[in-house]
Amino acid sequence: MNTVIEIAAQAKQASRKLANISTRIKNDALLAMAGALEESAGQIMEENKKDLTYAKEMGIPSVLIDRLALNEKRIMAMAAGLRDVAALPDPVGEIISMCRRPNGLQIGRVRVPLGVIGIIYEARPNVTADTAGLCLKSGNAVILRGGKEAINSNKIIADILDKAAVSAGIPKNSISLIQDTDRQAVRELVKLHNLVDVIILRGGKSLLEAVGAESSVPIISHGEGNCHVFVDRDADLLMAARIVFNAKVQRPGVCNAAESLLVHKDIAREFLPGMIDQLKEAGVEIRGCSETKRIAADILEATEDDWSREYLDLIISVKVVDSLDEAIEHINKYGSSHSEAIVTSSYTAARRFLQEIDAAAVYVNASTRFTDGGEFGLGAEIGISTQKLHARGPMGLVELTTLKFIIFGDGQIRE
Amino acid sequence: MNTVIEIAAQAKQASRKLANISTRIKNDALLAMAGALEESAGQIMEENKKDLTYAKEMGIPSVLIDRLALNEKRIMAMAAGLRDVAALPDPVGEIISMCRRPNGLQIGRVRVPLGVIGIIYEARPNVTADTAGLCLKSGNAVILRGGKEAINSNKIIADILDKAAVSAGIPKNSISLIQDTDRQAVRELVKLHNLVDVIILRGGKSLLEAVGAESSVPIISHGEGNCHVFVDRDADLLMAARIVFNAKVQRPGVCNAAESLLVHKDIAREFLPGMIDQLKEAGVEIRGCSETKRIAADILEATEDDWSREYLDLIISVKVVDSLDEAIEHINKYGSSHSEAIVTSSYTAARRFLQEIDAAAVYVNASTRFTDGGEFGLGAEIGISTQKLHARGPMGLVELTTLKFIIFGDGQIRE
Repeated sequence: MNTVIEIAAQAKQASRKLANISTRIKNDALLAMAGALEESAGQIMEENKKDLTYAKEMGIPSVLIDRLALNEKRIMAMAAGLRDVAALPDPVGEIISMCRRPNGLQIGRVRVPLGVIGIIYEARPNVTADTAGLCLKSGNAVILRGGKEAINSNKIIADILDKAAVSAGIPKNSISLIQDTDRQAVRELVKLHNLVDVIILRGGKSLLEAVGAESSVPIISHGEGNCHVFVDRDADLLMAARIVFNAKVQRPGVCNAAESLLVHKDIAREFLPGMIDQLKEAGVEIRGCSETKRIAADILEATEDDWSREYLDLIISVKVVDSLDEAIEHINKYGSSHSEAIVTSSYTAARRFLQEIDAAAVYVNASTRFTDGGEFGLGAEIGISTQKLHARGPMGLVELTTLKFIIFGDGQIRE
Repeated sequence: MNTVIEIAAQAKQASRKLANISTRIKNDALLAMAGALEESAGQIMEENKKDLTYAKEMGIPSVLIDRLALNEKRIMAMAAGLRDVAALPDPVGEIISMCRRPNGLQIGRVRVPLGVIGIIYEARPNVTADTAGLCLKSGNAVILRGGKEAINSNKIIADILDKAAVSAGIPKNSISLIQDTDRQAVRELVKLHNLVDVIILRGGKSLLEAVGAESSVPIISHGEGNCHVFVDRDADLLMAARIVFNAKVQRPGVCNAAESLLVHKDIAREFLPGMIDQLKEAGVEIRGCSETKRIAADILEATEDDWSREYLDLIISVKVVDSLDEAIEHINKYGSSHSEAIVTSSYTAARRFLQEIDAAAVYVNASTRFTDGGEFGLGAEIGISTQKLHARGPMGLVELTTLKFIIFGDGQIRE
């Protein structure tokens, strides 16, 4: 078993070659990888069974076991994902600008791969294939570090992908997996800033806090989503109810689900009783401010802590606000800068909300659930960034590249 | 005197308002700031004298004292710089893309300020004015932390700028200076990731290493430049000599000056003797590889360490290489990914060099000295990034912004 630093050094070497591999070879490799996964479905499911057995022995919650489990359908979906990535345009080599300066120098900017991408993630083994595909297409070598619950599945998947890629002409070590599941291996990885260009963190807040403090490699984190829907006094209340219900209930365990509902006081008495009934019927627990409790008695009282919570569950906090200003202030104070929505028919309110809310995605009259690379038209996504540097919001292939200035001269020197 | 955390909290508050201030008010403020600097030139020079007296007492080298010293001309130049920034287009609010998705959602990306920018820099007090101007124009609150050698100059300049800005309608605390010159204050600043959005580091490698390891705020570093010129076998040797001389000698103390010369073996005997004489005449110390020494005996022998050095001085390392491949490999191994140049008349060599060199700026037939925001047409610059994330190469106003997704719906929900 290679050490983390050996893996990283080999990945760095591979990345130099991979950066200049043709799109055709990369696409051939992605198709070969898809085919290899399908052919080895039986073998993958066998290794996955080992992980499942272990997980059950450890008493891991059934929702996590469901994420971990692979069946034929899920393996086919992984393969289909790789074929989708093959069909996306290659971002590498795109020249996004080119101008001629007064001294005759021609100066442009070209998209190039970042180099070596480390990705730290948790239980879902499909992330192994998705990430390997996106990194390969964008010309980056990838170092995968999945959770220990999925180690057998990840090992077999990474091995299959690597072999298929190499057989299609991709440099060796372009796809590697850290097999050491100790946290110490992550600690080593995040200190290798001379070998690793960026770390993508997909995981909880605790992972970010643990790794972020120690990392000398720049991190892009797939952060948490404490998303709000604000129902303004001018809202179409039927539309508002549909949007709130969708944002909370359609898939409560994901980062773009709503965790908090803000309602303008002028329509609170008209809107809230029905909305709360509808949410309750769907099994949602309501935690309201004192004003909300006055309107709908049979709910829990929200504490200060509730305003900052990402429940990832059928729970919602509800607050009645006096004004658009209070809504904006509340969201900028308690939100996690992920996805925020206003429901309104007021031009002025929509414009102010779009401008003044500080978040990756700001919506007027639509559900927060659309924050997703596919829905936004980026093709596949490698994560959703809630930070501001480099990438904000859903990250596709372009976000896995950087820009290089290229300068064409005829002997120019600086006076 | 406010504590670092108080300063940062006030800056965060200011940044919320500043993000939505009109371009006209920002430009008025920049002009007012320029006028105020000119009017207070006498007062600034008096405070600067205190710094100079102290610096001389401390025995600070004269080259640093020169950087620290302000006179009427330099103060006018600071004011002119602010007027130049007022004349640049405002990046904030630009919508860089907008599309309609199949479900009718209209999804766009708009440029918004980063928020609060901390900048850590060394002796030159003009950085105080340049940075404050660029951050203000791009809608960011700025926290300045200059070197202790310039503290009196920085205090008066920051105070003048802040007052002029506020009088023109800019929110209070948009421009602030950490007056505590202890390193501990920097340590506190870089841990405030909830209040500070990015730290820009302008300073040596030691500052980066000290701060980088402790920072929980993302850092953009103005890194070092170990820049190369490679003279290919097909080069126009007269052009090559002009470029090498310019890149090394025109201003040796800056990051885009060349530190190393690579020469193809086929033209080494023809090119090197004259080149070395010319450099020596300009006072340049030559440190050559064994092959270079064979060609030009009267030079020092380069050690392994020389290939990685940023001399920032009239010293150059020289190596004869067997091939373009060896040149590319050498540069990617020892270079600092700043600015790299090839001199060649070969189409194939130019194309390969542009593609395979991993650096912020890659040149064909021009001096590396052009890597600069002004020369590249970005207007002013806040620094040159040698990292790959967010910004690479000269950073102008656009690099001080991030993107926000804005989504216009008519009640869309996710199925």
